[in-house]
Amino acid sequence: MRKGYVSPSLMCVDLMNVQSDIEKLEKVGVDYFHVDMMDNHFVPNITLSTDFIKALKKISKTPLDIHMMIEHPEQTIPELTCCDENDIICIHYESTLHPQKVLASIRAMGVKAGIAINPATPVCVLEDILPDVDMVLCMTVNPGFAGQKLIPATLDKITRIRKLLNEKGYSEVLIEADGNVSFENAVKMHAAGADIYVAGTSSIFSKAGTLEENLEKFRKIIGE
Amino acid sequence: MRKGYVSPSLMCVDLMNVQSDIEKLEKVGVDYFHVDMMDNHFVPNITLSTDFIKALKKISKTPLDIHMMIEHPEQTIPELTCCDENDIICIHYESTLHPQKVLASIRAMGVKAGIAINPATPVCVLEDILPDVDMVLCMTVNPGFAGQKLIPATLDKITRIRKLLNEKGYSEVLIEADGNVSFENAVKMHAAGADIYVAGTSSIFSKAGTLEENLEKFRKIIGE
Amino acid sequence: MRKGYVSPSLMCVDLMNVQSDIEKLEKVGVDYFHVDMMDNHFVPNITLSTDFIKALKKISKTPLDIHMMIEHPEQTIPELTCCDENDIICIHYESTLHPQKVLASIRAMGVKAGIAINPATPVCVLEDILPDVDMVLCMTVNPGFAGQKLIPATLDKITRIRKLLNEKGYSEVLIEADGNVSFENAVKMHAAGADIYVAGTSSIFSKAGTLEENLEKFRKIIGE
Amino acid sequence: MRKGYVSPSLMCVDLMNVQSDIEKLEKVGVDYFHVDMMDNHFVPNITLSTDFIKALKKISKTPLDIHMMIEHPEQTIPELTCCDENDIICIHYESTLHPQKVLASIRAMGVKAGIAINPATPVCVLEDILPDVDMVLCMTVNPGFAGQKLIPATLDKITRIRKLLNEKGYSEVLIEADGNVSFENAVKMHAAGADIYVAGTSSIFSKAGTLEENLEKFRKIIGE
Amino acid sequence: MRKGYVSPSLMCVDLMNVQSDIEKLEKVGVDYFHVDMMDNHFVPNITLSTDFIKALKKISKTPLDIHMMIEHPEQTIPELTCCDENDIICIHYESTLHPQKVLASIRAMGVKAGIAINPATPVCVLEDILPDVDMVLCMTVNPGFAGQKLIPATLDKITRIRKLLNEKGYSEVLIEADGNVSFENAVKMHAAGADIYVAGTSSIFSKAGTLEENLEKFRKIIGE
Amino acid sequence: MRKGYVSPSLMCVDLMNVQSDIEKLEKVGVDYFHVDMMDNHFVPNITLSTDFIKALKKISKTPLDIHMMIEHPEQTIPELTCCDENDIICIHYESTLHPQKVLASIRAMGVKAGIAINPATPVCVLEDILPDVDMVLCMTVNPGFAGQKLIPATLDKITRIRKLLNEKGYSEVLIEADGNVSFENAVKMHAAGADIYVAGTSSIFSKAGTLEENLEKFRKIIGE
Repeated sequence: MRKGYVSPSLMCVDLMNVQSDIEKLEKVGVDYFHVDMMDNHFVPNITLSTDFIKALKKISKTPLDIHMMIEHPEQTIPELTCCDENDIICIHYESTLHPQKVLASIRAMGVKAGIAINPATPVCVLEDILPDVDMVLCMTVNPGFAGQKLIPATLDKITRIRKLLNEKGYSEVLIEADGNVSFENAVKMHAAGADIYVAGTSSIFSKAGTLEENLEKFRKIIGE
Repeated sequence: MRKGYVSPSLMCVDLMNVQSDIEKLEKVGVDYFHVDMMDNHFVPNITLSTDFIKALKKISKTPLDIHMMIEHPEQTIPELTCCDENDIICIHYESTLHPQKVLASIRAMGVKAGIAINPATPVCVLEDILPDVDMVLCMTVNPGFAGQKLIPATLDKITRIRKLLNEKGYSEVLIEADGNVSFENAVKMHAAGADIYVAGTSSIFSKAGTLEENLEKFRKIIGE
Repeated sequence: MRKGYVSPSLMCVDLMNVQSDIEKLEKVGVDYFHVDMMDNHFVPNITLSTDFIKALKKISKTPLDIHMMIEHPEQTIPELTCCDENDIICIHYESTLHPQKVLASIRAMGVKAGIAINPATPVCVLEDILPDVDMVLCMTVNPGFAGQKLIPATLDKITRIRKLLNEKGYSEVLIEADGNVSFENAVKMHAAGADIYVAGTSSIFSKAGTLEENLEKFRKIIGE
Repeated sequence: MRKGYVSPSLMCVDLMNVQSDIEKLEKVGVDYFHVDMMDNHFVPNITLSTDFIKALKKISKTPLDIHMMIEHPEQTIPELTCCDENDIICIHYESTLHPQKVLASIRAMGVKAGIAINPATPVCVLEDILPDVDMVLCMTVNPGFAGQKLIPATLDKITRIRKLLNEKGYSEVLIEADGNVSFENAVKMHAAGADIYVAGTSSIFSKAGTLEENLEKFRKIIGE
Repeated sequence: MRKGYVSPSLMCVDLMNVQSDIEKLEKVGVDYFHVDMMDNHFVPNITLSTDFIKALKKISKTPLDIHMMIEHPEQTIPELTCCDENDIICIHYESTLHPQKVLASIRAMGVKAGIAINPATPVCVLEDILPDVDMVLCMTVNPGFAGQKLIPATLDKITRIRKLLNEKGYSEVLIEADGNVSFENAVKMHAAGADIYVAGTSSIFSKAGTLEENLEKFRKIIGE
Repeated sequence: MRKGYVSPSLMCVDLMNVQSDIEKLEKVGVDYFHVDMMDNHFVPNITLSTDFIKALKKISKTPLDIHMMIEHPEQTIPELTCCDENDIICIHYESTLHPQKVLASIRAMGVKAGIAINPATPVCVLEDILPDVDMVLCMTVNPGFAGQKLIPATLDKITRIRKLLNEKGYSEVLIEADGNVSFENAVKMHAAGADIYVAGTSSIFSKAGTLEENLEKFRKIIGE
């Protein structure tokens, strides 16, 4: 069974006490921290910042999984010199005219590069950038806000992305599922071929269990 | 002597432990918390978010002084229903084609409305919106980044804003100085007519003294 | 023979006497009214408005087929509460970064959702939004102006859209042909698999026949 | 007493029966028809179009007073060849980087040129284009929507515009007041120095009187 | 062996003495001159202008191969009336919402039309515009700057474009390779199916040989 | 008599033989070379480039007077490291939200900083940036194209700029007149207070005299 990775969304932590929540998450053991950056233009919201990332890097060694929902990502990426080869910086295909250039610039910094695609973006846009990415982030809701329902068609999309990756010789590229990754949906995402799971209030932060219980339950679903 | 108000910039607190820093600030006593919102478009940076403000409101009663360095502020303001009549939401004159409309919408929410102007923006743009504002924020550096030097010409600009306000019958409108508000510069800003001071690393967060000592020193300068 | 639907373009009616022309069209019997909205940005023209739609709804029960050639459609759609389950609101794939989100918002209002694609936009962009649409509008000229000639390659495109819809299990989704839908071209569009026909000066409004004669001739072509 | 001119807003007519309403207005006698163009970008709305203006010109000889609330007005103005020396085409100062160029291009078409300013735009922006305009439109509400309340500060603004015009030798330039021009407000606008009045539902289209009665009452206020 | 065409990049000539360099190139014999237009928006650079093209046309009969890396190409194309049926005007698919319209407008001027695609743009975007193009420009580096390394995946992309063209009956459409077209890379580009080669400092302008020697060597590689 | 400086527009030289024309100009003696940069956005044209400037610097020691008619000037200025303390880089007030920041960045490179204003831009926008500029460029036509007629109101504008500079203690700041600087208009511009004159086809490049004769005539007008 393919191993799955847990990437808790830091939009779910208490912004007034991040360190405390980070420590709790690290204690139970997570694989990444998912950091959402938004700019009020690519999506109508603003969330976490480069200052947040820099502060986080000072207190944590957990790899970051940075999801840039911003236009002009090439303007912000050079600020992220705190990132290293275990971190992933992921940009949106739809956010720039020159995705290959930006992806290459991320790798030139020694950081893993990811490409995210919106629900309505076809899988074929990935065809010419497969050699440039370490991860494909498949949005399973529309980006910008928490609390949305899974768009069912995105499950088949994960399957098609996995098929494309395997057929073209890029089976080592990871697929991340982001949006309404509940326990129920994670089962289907895993079956479809996802590797990294952005976990939020409907799974590991669920009030129905402790963080430990939730994480244990989640790991069983996504493959340990 | 006109009373001055201290508004510590929350860009200076530890983002991993905000509550702890907020409590320290409230213990020594401050008048506002200055919250910078940036969108990577109006200025090339992203900082604090509406989620941050909502979380802050849950742990603090100190009035907020929210500085929106974002385009399309009308899109974000309706999110700030947590604000009340003691808070100030301040937009940039240069950030919208319809500043009067946005200012009126802030007041319609029962919140105080402020207008910020960049260093190169002339004072005359304020003339037709004086009845719509509770505060004028005079940028004393260019917005977007910490650590800049005071632009000396902005001191005279504060004087001219104060003169305009007094002459037109709006002497109760407050002037905020934002940018390199060091102990030295605060003396001049106070002489020029500023009321609210965005305090950062060169004054109350200075390493040369304790927070308490710095604040005491600062209050003496700006008028208790 | 698959039934075709007639959707007269209201850009062809007398804007000074819309009601009179609407009544003539309803008397002879049409299936939809095609309403073009343009914003001088997505296309370099401005045509009909939400006010026009609201006024039209007060005098007519004929379903509307609203074609939004505008950026930021999500800003305008909430104005269209006068629409119901027989109406179609159609946005352009190229007009927003988040087509799935906007399509879902149209359906959430209880209205049918359509997606339009420009002549140069490939059919594959439809692949991931098939569950979200009731209609695909295939532009057979470039949007923005009346009086253009059919782009021949768009006939084959209709065929490929129909094939995609049928193969993926969405055969009930309608295809609309928009642009130079003359009697001659309608024959070919019908053969290709179109369902709804935006009819203008080269068919039902042709000076060569009465409205009744033209419509009768047109219905024979497109399938009664 | 300076003569005032009535310019009924065609946003108030029945869009399904424009000709009929136009004839009623012409029968009682009006000076202009005010035509609002919006583009969903300069203001968040779309209203009347160049097609509307062309159709109107075919049935009416009343001078048009065209208010372009659109970006890139230079793109649309060449479409308006139906306008003549009695018509006014008015652009917004805030809508283009090159207002003088656009104003000059309107006059080069043989049409009168107007400049509109938003409530928050200072009067001083007019200083360098006085020789280029036949009319200044002073927005007395924010542009984009009907039904707003007068912004009181705009009355004084009309006074200051009139003063500027007279002092600089441009006393023949007309001032138009647009926004909540009710009977009550028209009294104040007239006292302030307005010449053309955009009349809507709170004056000549008021349900409290007939069109004839309302117009008679209105003309007494604004100067016959 | 399919004949290849040499198109020296005029970014490599001495801008202070263009005529002299043009004459040297014409003396040894080239097929096109490649003219890069950039606008600081589509790519972050400005290079050659319409004035440059007009001046060039006065001193040279060599066909031009104009590469527009600009937004709003429809605004600039009408300036290029100096071009004729031997010249190619090439726009970027990513630079406009209406590529088919712009391509058709180029042909309507009697000039050959080309479409360029960025490294991350999938080949499928070409499917619906094959009848509208005389050339496909495949970027083999990211556009905007000289001195970049070949993106290896673009070689396979050329193969796929050639395959598409041949399969769909457009084998006469030429493919241009643009970006790091060195002697070594030209071998691979030729094998992949390229026809026109943008030659710069790593081939015909190489310091390792004279212009004549370089060109002779290059022509042997690309097919005489 | 205040000394005037001649700055020939390099838009008037033969782009195929720039060096030759530069040498002719230097032989007769000019004070600056005026280099127009345009980006097809701030103005609808593209002209000279940073590559042009770099090549020019290699063959000439005449100070450059660079006129940036581009948006995002901060993106391009760092490319101009070839400039020194005798050169002027001039940006448009209307081209950026942060003019003071860009002006300061030019001076930080050791280059003189200029601010340009369009015909419709009021003089008051200069008030808060006087300490930041070495030159004010007053557009006497609209920027973007050669061959326009002087806008008469701009003569008085020069007078008012000169007055502002003198009154505020910045009499050493130079004023540049740009647009239709014919022999006749230069007389008036000189009377108004201009210092630098952008000379084109209606003065020093006039066909009515030799370059030498024209320049001699021009220098007498503007003050030797």
